[in-house]
Amino acid sequence: MAIQLIAIKGLPEVEPGADLAALICQAARAQATPLADRELLVVSQKIVSKAEGRLVDLSTVIPSPFAREIALEQKRDPRVVELILRESRRIVRMDKGLLIVETHHGFVCANAGVDLSNVGGGEVASLLPEDPDLSARKIREGIRARAGVEVGIIISDTFGRAWREGLVNVAIGVAGFRPLRSFLGMRDPQGYRLQATVQAIADELAAAADLLFGKLDRIPVAIVRGFPYEPGEGSVQELIRPPDRDLFR
Amino acid sequence: MAIQLIAIKGLPEVEPGADLAALICQAARAQATPLADRELLVVSQKIVSKAEGRLVDLSTVIPSPFAREIALEQKRDPRVVELILRESRRIVRMDKGLLIVETHHGFVCANAGVDLSNVGGGEVASLLPEDPDLSARKIREGIRARAGVEVGIIISDTFGRAWREGLVNVAIGVAGFRPLRSFLGMRDPQGYRLQATVQAIADELAAAADLLFGKLDRIPVAIVRGFPYEPGEGSVQELIRPPDRDLFR
Repeated sequence: MAIQLIAIKGLPEVEPGADLAALICQAARAQATPLADRELLVVSQKIVSKAEGRLVDLSTVIPSPFAREIALEQKRDPRVVELILRESRRIVRMDKGLLIVETHHGFVCANAGVDLSNVGGGEVASLLPEDPDLSARKIREGIRARAGVEVGIIISDTFGRAWREGLVNVAIGVAGFRPLRSFLGMRDPQGYRLQATVQAIADELAAAADLLFGKLDRIPVAIVRGFPYEPGEGSVQELIRPPDRDLFR
Repeated sequence: MAIQLIAIKGLPEVEPGADLAALICQAARAQATPLADRELLVVSQKIVSKAEGRLVDLSTVIPSPFAREIALEQKRDPRVVELILRESRRIVRMDKGLLIVETHHGFVCANAGVDLSNVGGGEVASLLPEDPDLSARKIREGIRARAGVEVGIIISDTFGRAWREGLVNVAIGVAGFRPLRSFLGMRDPQGYRLQATVQAIADELAAAADLLFGKLDRIPVAIVRGFPYEPGEGSVQELIRPPDRDLFR
């Protein structure tokens, strides 16, 4: 059994309004790795946000007094802090020049995913997609319409974690499959009931794709070939742990 | 650019004292995917613990009064709680029948990695390797000696996370490469200084391998082929975030 992770290269610079499904199908065909049924695609949040026009010209942002105060304390651009606050449901931690927040989607991450890098020059910030599951569904449907294949989609972003150093890529939107795989009630070869029973496959797929994404060479999409999964409806909300079940937070 | 994840099947049941490097080289050759320079191997903790004899017959464990008290409250086997406490440096959370601890290695995980499943029948618990970096180095050296190739090694286990549902596979020991890849000070194609600068590649490699491991079909080793990395000395300690830098905890 083998899984292949294939980088999709040669995508043009993505502009607001771009048809990502069309660009991905085209680029995959051009490099002779056309998409096939039951494959999965991991798509970097950056190009989804760009295609959806989730870009804000910083010169149009008027920071609130609270944003100004935090910015002063953290030595940051108050307009960026303002955007972070607008994208947030709650501040989880605020220290050492960092804002860890819970976004409106329910993700806990640094700076609410507001990003200044890789966004076509100037003073422009990119925000996370408003509804990343919907973004994923649209790409999935676009690919079905254009290439006639059923694929699973993961929109991914790199997040920090508690307890451990370094960032890892995780799923922030999914379509076409369930992001968790459950082994509840199953037994191992010795007949023992399995203890570690729910595997976050969408996050593991996102992490795997990040091995290709790199940071400098602009690879924003990867094909996962050979990973058996159960097609179906899924939502990234399944990956968000309710506070009352979360002993790690 | 493509990465291949290849399951190594056909390993025999691992017994205490087993030479894992030999078993892995043999199984890889037997399935016509012999190891090559610059590949990486992800090895499940379970077989490492077995090979190292990190197994405890529960009937030999005498629980302390504290272990008994926790066990009573959590409706668990006091001997298992005793083992968890012995493997721990500190209890992080204790609720809902779960013990989240910091192990002597510095890992924050449920039950200190003490596991009853998949360990040759009867009332036997398996513990994490005492020094997983050393375990990884030994496998690396064993493979160099037998197959004449330089590979990177990751010992992995599945951990829960804060904020998110489901378990993911992470690195608990490494050899032959640095577990973090840094982009500090680098710039993206638009000339922006990168913000997300340190990638936990060892954890992403472990997560990728878990897509093959499954839970029921006993695949404990995966080859990662085609992932460019810088060979060198590395330690899993680089993946453990010091408390004063950890805003997520």
